[in-house]
Amino acid sequence: MNTLIIGIAGGSGSGKSTITRILASKFPGHVTVLNHDNYYKAQHDKPFEERVKVNYDAPEAFDTALMIEDLRKLKAGQAIDCPVYDYSIHDRTDETKHIEPADVIFVDGILILENEELRNLMDIKIFVDTDADERVLRRILRDVKERKRTLDSVIGQYLATVKPMHELYVEPSKKFADIIIPEGGHNLVALELLEKRIQNHVKV
Amino acid sequence: MNTLIIGIAGGSGSGKSTITRILASKFPGHVTVLNHDNYYKAQHDKPFEERVKVNYDAPEAFDTALMIEDLRKLKAGQAIDCPVYDYSIHDRTDETKHIEPADVIFVDGILILENEELRNLMDIKIFVDTDADERVLRRILRDVKERKRTLDSVIGQYLATVKPMHELYVEPSKKFADIIIPEGGHNLVALELLEKRIQNHVKV
Repeated sequence: MNTLIIGIAGGSGSGKSTITRILASKFPGHVTVLNHDNYYKAQHDKPFEERVKVNYDAPEAFDTALMIEDLRKLKAGQAIDCPVYDYSIHDRTDETKHIEPADVIFVDGILILENEELRNLMDIKIFVDTDADERVLRRILRDVKERKRTLDSVIGQYLATVKPMHELYVEPSKKFADIIIPEGGHNLVALELLEKRIQNHVKV
Repeated sequence: MNTLIIGIAGGSGSGKSTITRILASKFPGHVTVLNHDNYYKAQHDKPFEERVKVNYDAPEAFDTALMIEDLRKLKAGQAIDCPVYDYSIHDRTDETKHIEPADVIFVDGILILENEELRNLMDIKIFVDTDADERVLRRILRDVKERKRTLDSVIGQYLATVKPMHELYVEPSKKFADIIIPEGGHNLVALELLEKRIQNHVKV
């Protein structure tokens, strides 16, 4: 199988997952998505109070080596069992998610372009670039309305780790992108461009 | 005729014309290129000494209204006679260049996304984003080696108008782009993406 690997990076709230979802939905049966978030490190050995304090916006929080291994397997046509992470306990669960290889694999995450070995596996490296004020507003809406967190805790985490790690790791990784997409999921022209490229690959 | 209009903007030395040239060469007979540079205002009424002093990196230097008129004609399937500009005399010549309508029209120039009416005519708006240091180096190489200008004059013009106008008009116009392409003509992944999109249009 000739696999097309598309990396979609961008800050929290940039709209990268919307792009991934829209594109994946257009090619049912042809696309699989690997989320870096599922590869947060297992931390059964740490007590809950410690796990809460971990910086989840830094590269060290992820088991990227395992993700690379899994991506290589998918590329080679082998199915994988992807870890499943539970945010409420800040730990990897005992469950796994069975993922079959596909023509097109999306790799989604804020830091997926930061790791050289990971990004070298990608055929198309995309960075979704949305202004910081719009990103923070989307994050507030999502975390307060959908995840029932308090406004104070969302803002506190944003200023303590999300923003500094964005500036330290996410923003500089834009340099490795092949194309930069402003405005995420609302950018219909960019979506169409990618759709045509995938269509072309899937048809072959 | 269903015309696909692709705008390619970006700073001086960004590699936008390389992208335009590479893509146009892949679809002979299907692509035509409109250069904003050809629409520098005629200034027969000004003496040479005055013409030398004009700021050629500002929107006012261009007859963008005429370019919009011509682009509308091409879109409507009518041929145009595009003005021809002579840099050595800083003036529009008496010649014109006959341009037939085509399936795909590239609009190339540093300021083509700055004008709202012009950019609203485009189906795909691209901004080629290259670091300022790499852009200035390319400009020096081009102007000193190909155009036989002195290093001092190139640097003088760069600091006096190219850089300030870039910051004032070119860089902010990136906001209007549908996709941003880092590194210009060396970006093979972005070129392939655009090639597939054009192929798709030309085949229909």
